[in-house]
Amino acid sequence: MALMPKIEYENAAAAVREVYDDIRATRKSDYINDIWKVLANDPALLKHSWEQAKTVMGNGAIDSLTKEFIYLAVSMTNNCEYCINSHTAAARSKGMSDVQFGELLSVVGLANQMNRLAVGTQVAVDAKLRQLQHP
Amino acid sequence: MALMPKIEYENAAAAVREVYDDIRATRKSDYINDIWKVLANDPALLKHSWEQAKTVMGNGAIDSLTKEFIYLAVSMTNNCEYCINSHTAAARSKGMSDVQFGELLSVVGLANQMNRLAVGTQVAVDAKLRQLQHP
Amino acid sequence: MALMPKIEYENAAAAVREVYDDIRATRKSDYINDIWKVLANDPALLKHSWEQAKTVMGNGAIDSLTKEFIYLAVSMTNNCEYCINSHTAAARSKGMSDVQFGELLSVVGLANQMNRLAVGTQVAVDAKLRQLQHP
Amino acid sequence: MALMPKIEYENAAAAVREVYDDIRATRKSDYINDIWKVLANDPALLKHSWEQAKTVMGNGAIDSLTKEFIYLAVSMTNNCEYCINSHTAAARSKGMSDVQFGELLSVVGLANQMNRLAVGTQVAVDAKLRQLQHP
Amino acid sequence: MALMPKIEYENAAAAVREVYDDIRATRKSDYINDIWKVLANDPALLKHSWEQAKTVMGNGAIDSLTKEFIYLAVSMTNNCEYCINSHTAAARSKGMSDVQFGELLSVVGLANQMNRLAVGTQVAVDAKLRQLQHP
Amino acid sequence: MALMPKIEYENAAAAVREVYDDIRATRKSDYINDIWKVLANDPALLKHSWEQAKTVMGNGAIDSLTKEFIYLAVSMTNNCEYCINSHTAAARSKGMSDVQFGELLSVVGLANQMNRLAVGTQVAVDAKLRQLQHP
Repeated sequence: MALMPKIEYENAAAAVREVYDDIRATRKSDYINDIWKVLANDPALLKHSWEQAKTVMGNGAIDSLTKEFIYLAVSMTNNCEYCINSHTAAARSKGMSDVQFGELLSVVGLANQMNRLAVGTQVAVDAKLRQLQHP
Repeated sequence: MALMPKIEYENAAAAVREVYDDIRATRKSDYINDIWKVLANDPALLKHSWEQAKTVMGNGAIDSLTKEFIYLAVSMTNNCEYCINSHTAAARSKGMSDVQFGELLSVVGLANQMNRLAVGTQVAVDAKLRQLQHP
Repeated sequence: MALMPKIEYENAAAAVREVYDDIRATRKSDYINDIWKVLANDPALLKHSWEQAKTVMGNGAIDSLTKEFIYLAVSMTNNCEYCINSHTAAARSKGMSDVQFGELLSVVGLANQMNRLAVGTQVAVDAKLRQLQHP
Repeated sequence: MALMPKIEYENAAAAVREVYDDIRATRKSDYINDIWKVLANDPALLKHSWEQAKTVMGNGAIDSLTKEFIYLAVSMTNNCEYCINSHTAAARSKGMSDVQFGELLSVVGLANQMNRLAVGTQVAVDAKLRQLQHP
Repeated sequence: MALMPKIEYENAAAAVREVYDDIRATRKSDYINDIWKVLANDPALLKHSWEQAKTVMGNGAIDSLTKEFIYLAVSMTNNCEYCINSHTAAARSKGMSDVQFGELLSVVGLANQMNRLAVGTQVAVDAKLRQLQHP
Repeated sequence: MALMPKIEYENAAAAVREVYDDIRATRKSDYINDIWKVLANDPALLKHSWEQAKTVMGNGAIDSLTKEFIYLAVSMTNNCEYCINSHTAAARSKGMSDVQFGELLSVVGLANQMNRLAVGTQVAVDAKLRQLQHP
């Protein structure tokens, strides 16, 4: 279900098929997640979202599994059901253990708590920390 | 500046001093961040916040620097100025490089974008992914 | 389903019926959305919510369809399933095209991404922009 | 500072003066908070915001101080600096003690943490609790 | 349904059983909410979450029902379906009336509106209010 | 001030200069906003953010001023001070009137209020509206 129809490969325009082909080649799987099929209603949006995701989520100075942890932390905080389900699956496929999932949850819970305590008390950034900023 | 006064060590009750001593011993530094001095107005809140932070943020199945990335991802998404400043400093002290900071920002930006696209289109979780859930 | 029962016209107090009559007259339809039937448990809340919605969402210096885009942008960012579904329907009925829906999503995605990049880097408002503020 | 000028009583249109008079009479004070002076750039927005605030925040089945706790819980969660400062002052003037402020923060911190743990694990509402909903 | 299996008492480790026993004793009921059964996958997370919830939500300078209002205000603002359902049930069991629920919703709606108006206009905290902060 | 230094044109690598040149040509102004100078610490992030912003924010099926309204609605809801200031300036330069700014605020305030009322009551999407979704 979605507010726009899912565009299947057979009915897709050339620009969309090109992205679908790249998703399949990159993921080494024929399966294309529904989010891409829905974004395909706007081929420009599909293309830049997918290319950004492909570039950003790969291994770099931060490894790909750690990037999934970061992505999940954001998605849990924003309450995105689709994203939490799909990126938990991605993290699992990249090796996330049960213990790591528990620690991820613990950090996300702590940070959300501490964020509100800092904001709720309106405590200013320590002068010592403020000095670390660049002019 | 804060909505409650900062409690300095000299004026602190025994229960607060005990936490301050533990912060100093754990951090191997005499400096105590202002957030703790403000939370000290409620000694029970100070104690459980600090103990949780100490336990959760240490090395485990997820290493301590990665936990700072997760913490920062939440704090950026929640827009907590105090937390972003203090935990960027913490991440730096644990070795975060400039390139890693750029990649962290890139993942946080991407996830926030994709979260809204998934929610905005109301795309349902793929049946294939839903099956990964436990009954 | 809801945490309070839906108040149907037949069982409604006079103050609630008055609002329902105004909803029907304004919308030129007998159908009353469930949100109003639920808010009707608190007649004062129903009345001020409906009157505010009626006044704010009509044509003005900003036309009514553009107001639906703004409303949807907020609802997507806040992740309100009910509001996204009902106001996508409203926007459609006021003429939103498929291409416009794609562009709306693109701006919402971009803004959510850029918001976090600005907050995540803690970049201060440019002096040049700050001068535009009123004392 | 604000993105629109503050409208002072002397320069205000009759519709705005009427609201200002009501604010002064209701609050039993000549002082008008800057938020109202800024909203006064749109007299209709000023009028409905103020009247809603006046009606909603007074004593009712929930007393006025408890309403300030609720208002603060929302404002801390949304990170509204202006609102946290002004409603902490309001809560203080209605008798909020230091201990109550600490307990308020503790509940806000806990709820923000638990919200993310529930969402992060994607745990479904217990069947037993779901039954409490109305059809 | 959840991203981790529910740990039932029979299959639980001693550390988990101890928490479950305390939940049952504290709540004077054999029923254990699913959130705890899911968090039990990480016994340390279960233990500190439960103990914090038990301590924070009890009667204190703020009574237990008022704490449920605060908890609900946060959960509504964060859009946590699980938390809204479970804590509405808790508030009901502690005596929340229909009229109180309506007033709670009214304050939550108002605060969310005013938060965005204050932020949207970028109005600075009144000098008079700023003076209430501690150095 | 920012957590990373601002990269000035003189000190910028070729890849960054290319983006700066495009910003200047597109905006028909020598001025480059600080956000780009900070993102320039990660040239890939700068490039895809700018190119996305340039493509998405231009006139299309939705005109450029309306896109600024949508962008501002998101930024107000997310509480991004930098973004609200810079995009209010952008909207002004594209012709936003005082009356339009007031109406924008009114819709943003209303939507934030109604979002929380819909979520707070847990009202399900009307069957009639649900049917508008695609399978």
